Amino acid sequence: MKKVAVILSGSGVFDGSEIHEAVLALYAIEQAGASWHCFAPNVDQHHVINHITGEPMNETRNVLIEASRIARGQIQDVAELSARDFDALLLPGGFGAAKNLSDFAIKGASCQIHPEVKRACQEFARAQKPAAYLCIAPVLIPQIYGKGAKGTIGHEKEVASAFRAMGGDHIDCPVDEFVLDQERCLLSTPAYMLAGSISEAASGINKLVQQLVKMA
Amino acid sequence: MKKVAVILSGSGVFDGSEIHEAVLALYAIEQAGASWHCFAPNVDQHHVINHITGEPMNETRNVLIEASRIARGQIQDVAELSARDFDALLLPGGFGAAKNLSDFAIKGASCQIHPEVKRACQEFARAQKPAAYLCIAPVLIPQIYGKGAKGTIGHEKEVASAFRAMGGDHIDCPVDEFVLDQERCLLSTPAYMLAGSISEAASGINKLVQQLVKMA
Repeated sequence: MKKVAVILSGSGVFDGSEIHEAVLALYAIEQAGASWHCFAPNVDQHHVINHITGEPMNETRNVLIEASRIARGQIQDVAELSARDFDALLLPGGFGAAKNLSDFAIKGASCQIHPEVKRACQEFARAQKPAAYLCIAPVLIPQIYGKGAKGTIGHEKEVASAFRAMGGDHIDCPVDEFVLDQERCLLSTPAYMLAGSISEAASGINKLVQQLVKMA
Repeated sequence: MKKVAVILSGSGVFDGSEIHEAVLALYAIEQAGASWHCFAPNVDQHHVINHITGEPMNETRNVLIEASRIARGQIQDVAELSARDFDALLLPGGFGAAKNLSDFAIKGASCQIHPEVKRACQEFARAQKPAAYLCIAPVLIPQIYGKGAKGTIGHEKEVASAFRAMGGDHIDCPVDEFVLDQERCLLSTPAYMLAGSISEAASGINKLVQQLVKMA
């Protein structure tokens, strides 16, 4: 059975992993006949957001511990993730990708990626093992794959522009499709950058995961 | 479009709503052509569990605020839920159903249901509007529907026995099926009481939701 490593960034769209995207991706991995294995960085979240009001809460939460809610406790520190042990990689979206896995939400094109996340993702890139980035997570692509790497965040102008500023080749993409950079075994889909419902998010995620597992 | 009210109990299997079950149910509601509308009680969680270690954390979290993570912020206090406004009801599982919506996890057969949750569920029962209870949530059924109501929590002996002690008619059920109490328009499925994977949980949830929306 093919093994897909999944890097989560917390649990909740505004300060962690987008929950629908994460669950849809794990479900699609199973449906494609592969197994999923969750990881997250063992660091404090950038902040904690009240998802009703959108306001920050006066709390500190750990990315790995919160992400374990999505994984029903079956999760490891991303520092332990080695591309050797897996056939493919997937990163769901949610602001956690831009606040916890990187500081893109604050720094834009001059963002930095969490060192262990960057190392793990680069291992998959160097090994030419297929990797998929959902929603806002593709903002990590240019720093991991270098100049000319193809990816999509849908068609949000400001984020697409930052993607290009970092050296990436941004390609507009509808919610029910995905972009494939064949040379780099690299996939991306807009998911909730564009989706207005779970079904819309699933339409692109399901296609992307089928292709990811096929290439693995 | 038919409208399904969904009562959540937090966000995370050990102290709130089971996240996979909740997302699968919302997705299945959309796929069946209906819309979902989330609610939760505005109370503190019974406790907060570190989902990696299984140990309680020294924190206080609000059920409604945490549940809003699953609903991407689109959620209301269950005190505002009226059966008049909806065609059907669904409660996912997770320990939150037995710790926050009720105190079944502590008191067993002598448990009490949160008064606003009980009132809302009873409105659906009296109006003969279809209602679905997943996983451990069926432990609420006997107190809402009274003596003889049929339901399943899979085949876990101790919980089934408590279900019977409260007056319910427990029926063993495999993970990929659901129990229908036709007279009461009442559905239940074991989900993660038995499931060993997301796909197994989905197999029963998808069938149950199709029937729920059909009956609505």
